[in-house]
Amino acid sequence: MRAFMQQFDNNATKEAHPMDFEKINMLLLDKDYSALKNELRNAQPADIADFLNELDEKQALLIFRLLPKEMAADVFAYLSVERQAELSDLVNEKELSEIIADLYFDDKVDFLEEMPANVVKKILKNTSEVERKLINQFLMYPDNSAGSLMTIEFVDLKKEMLAGDALERVRKTAPDKETIYTCYVIDAARHLEGTLSLKDLVLAPVDKKVGDIMQKDPIYVTTHDDQEGVADIFKKYDLLAVPVVDNERRLVGIITIDDIVDVIEKENTEDFYKMAAIQPTEEEYINAGVFTLARKRIVWLLVLMVSATFSGYIIRSFEATLQSLVALAAFIPMLMDTGGNAGSQASTLVIRSIVLGEVEFKDLLKVIWKEIRVSALVGAFLAAINFLRIYFLERYTLSIALTVSLTLVFTVIIAKIVGGVLPLVAKKLRVDPAIMASPLITTIVDGVALIIYFYFAKRILLI
Amino acid sequence: MRAFMQQFDNNATKEAHPMDFEKINMLLLDKDYSALKNELRNAQPADIADFLNELDEKQALLIFRLLPKEMAADVFAYLSVERQAELSDLVNEKELSEIIADLYFDDKVDFLEEMPANVVKKILKNTSEVERKLINQFLMYPDNSAGSLMTIEFVDLKKEMLAGDALERVRKTAPDKETIYTCYVIDAARHLEGTLSLKDLVLAPVDKKVGDIMQKDPIYVTTHDDQEGVADIFKKYDLLAVPVVDNERRLVGIITIDDIVDVIEKENTEDFYKMAAIQPTEEEYINAGVFTLARKRIVWLLVLMVSATFSGYIIRSFEATLQSLVALAAFIPMLMDTGGNAGSQASTLVIRSIVLGEVEFKDLLKVIWKEIRVSALVGAFLAAINFLRIYFLERYTLSIALTVSLTLVFTVIIAKIVGGVLPLVAKKLRVDPAIMASPLITTIVDGVALIIYFYFAKRILLI
Repeated sequence: MRAFMQQFDNNATKEAHPMDFEKINMLLLDKDYSALKNELRNAQPADIADFLNELDEKQALLIFRLLPKEMAADVFAYLSVERQAELSDLVNEKELSEIIADLYFDDKVDFLEEMPANVVKKILKNTSEVERKLINQFLMYPDNSAGSLMTIEFVDLKKEMLAGDALERVRKTAPDKETIYTCYVIDAARHLEGTLSLKDLVLAPVDKKVGDIMQKDPIYVTTHDDQEGVADIFKKYDLLAVPVVDNERRLVGIITIDDIVDVIEKENTEDFYKMAAIQPTEEEYINAGVFTLARKRIVWLLVLMVSATFSGYIIRSFEATLQSLVALAAFIPMLMDTGGNAGSQASTLVIRSIVLGEVEFKDLLKVIWKEIRVSALVGAFLAAINFLRIYFLERYTLSIALTVSLTLVFTVIIAKIVGGVLPLVAKKLRVDPAIMASPLITTIVDGVALIIYFYFAKRILLI
Repeated sequence: MRAFMQQFDNNATKEAHPMDFEKINMLLLDKDYSALKNELRNAQPADIADFLNELDEKQALLIFRLLPKEMAADVFAYLSVERQAELSDLVNEKELSEIIADLYFDDKVDFLEEMPANVVKKILKNTSEVERKLINQFLMYPDNSAGSLMTIEFVDLKKEMLAGDALERVRKTAPDKETIYTCYVIDAARHLEGTLSLKDLVLAPVDKKVGDIMQKDPIYVTTHDDQEGVADIFKKYDLLAVPVVDNERRLVGIITIDDIVDVIEKENTEDFYKMAAIQPTEEEYINAGVFTLARKRIVWLLVLMVSATFSGYIIRSFEATLQSLVALAAFIPMLMDTGGNAGSQASTLVIRSIVLGEVEFKDLLKVIWKEIRVSALVGAFLAAINFLRIYFLERYTLSIALTVSLTLVFTVIIAKIVGGVLPLVAKKLRVDPAIMASPLITTIVDGVALIIYFYFAKRILLI
């Protein structure tokens, strides 16, 4: 959650230009700590964290200790996991527990999840039993679930409260809350009964009951909902925050839009990886180990390599044809590549449309009909260009030019239909459509292209 | 912007389940309009819009007219462009100008941009001259610029105001504002001087001056900033809204997070398209015309097809080698595909890392070194599997098995280096790195694989 409310709460907003690292470096060299302190006070926590991530351990610790107390936790939440671990080791126990205490609850849980056992132990030792229990409960929500994204720092109200008292409660508890702009109304058993915006609360007469001005039946999600579904709800209803309930509809937390923005980018990255036949990983490429990277790539490469040998079998079974006219081999790469590219275009468009909720399995016939018309146009155009090149420019025989051009038309048509259909079928079979992207389509289309090619070669060239 | 404040303002939040379309359909058939009206009142505008998009024109109009007045504009903003155009044609001028008047300003501009000339004329006729001028100004901001995303419905304050008066101004103007949770402090010439959160305003003593409690030097963007950069600022600083200024730092609008979420998805879609060699389009796949789709795909297919003919030339130049051992042809698809896939994996990882700001050109050597090690591992493993298959399973000669396996190792290594390097070089040359994705890498690697293959074939097989 980091600084969801930063722009409102911290008075820490600044120009959209990174802070002056050079100046800070100079001050650091000059040991002008009071000027340094002043410079830091006016910088953005995200920028300071960027800066600290680049320094060596000792300098980072020095600067971190110069931060105004109220900024330390905020900067800490923005640091890289590696830097967080190093600083946690370097500071003393008192300092560490102060930082941790100031973190928002969801940042605290995220942080503990990433830290080595000795750091976790050090921290939990200084935590109250109630909070320790809560942390453990939060650590158990599955990765990518709504539960793993939520925070507990929201304002809760009761239906029977008067607007004036409710506003007083908001005022009093505001400093510790992630957001005060939506309040959550619960009953004695913590069941979610409604939401109330600060705006409505401010505008309401002080003697009106919360129950009469709150929004009943609010949108909510449950702790085990998948984060992708939660992101879709944010997008569809343009929300800033959503309440999270457990199986008995008791309010256990809220999720705010800043965390959802991260989820959207993460899910997109995952799709990019899957569509390039890489097993998804949460590690940044530049930080990931060589063995991890190799492992994430090798599985699909192997599967696709073995599949590609079928194209080899097809060539072998037409070896006699090829032997009698070895010139045919020269067109194989172009036919395979163009088919693969044509198929990938269709599959990418359809996969993305599925992800964005624009296309479903029921649109199958519509997709096929669209791809047939598009591919006929595209295929005919490419084949014409090809024919001209092969016949007039490279002066092959008419039959060879015809064979290659006809193969191209049919390959493009079949490639585009396969590319359009497979992601929809995958979705229907509850397989991730992203699997049906370029690499797999290319492999399938290769075989198709070769069969068409040799078929026409035999028919037209009579070999 | 649609209903950025919906959860706070409209009291229209609801369970995260779509509304009961069947029930509404039943009521529609029964002509039970009062029950229908009631059902609609409790539904989410986004859900009603989904429903209206599916109905035929007449029924859509009927339901639209049953909507409570305060919901009509909200639902209208969520409709598809096609449905908006149809309804604009069907309703009378008075109805239309009422809906348009209730739209948030950025939705109004978006809507006018999409409508045919006759509708635009009908609307502008009923608009005040001041607003007409403003609309025309907003229509001139380039697509994808901060100016094209912003809205004008924010609360502005003056430094000299007392907190109490400022709060009164917020209360009074709240109903027309997209957000009241951040207020923007400007001087007499409308220069942006600071921001003030509603929270700080509520907590401040009534006789304090706005200038003393506001945040000075706030983060801002300018009207001509690219939307991708604006999105990066939202992500980095976890913002909910950002002020937009003109060249003289005069405040002209604000951008809210809900529109940025749309920008993020749009930019991702664009990258997916580019990486599959499709020219980006904003049209949804399922609604796009056949000719549009064909045009967006044909350019790159043609470029890649022509490039792929170089692989053909390579094969032709080794025709004698191939003629003497036509069995070699059977391994060409596997070598080309595996090389292409290996290269695409590397390029996808690097392209995505560039987009997410994790890798820059200065990391070039780091990337190369990483890819060399990963590809040596992956290549060796794949080659070993291949050797076993070719030599033991398919019982080719040792020299052929060696030729193919060695080619595979070197192809994978070169493919991964090329895939890792090209996106970074593109970025350096200010070309979109997404171009250097699977299709182009595959075409390049094909040629490389063939040259290596025939080189080893000549050396090892002595042909």
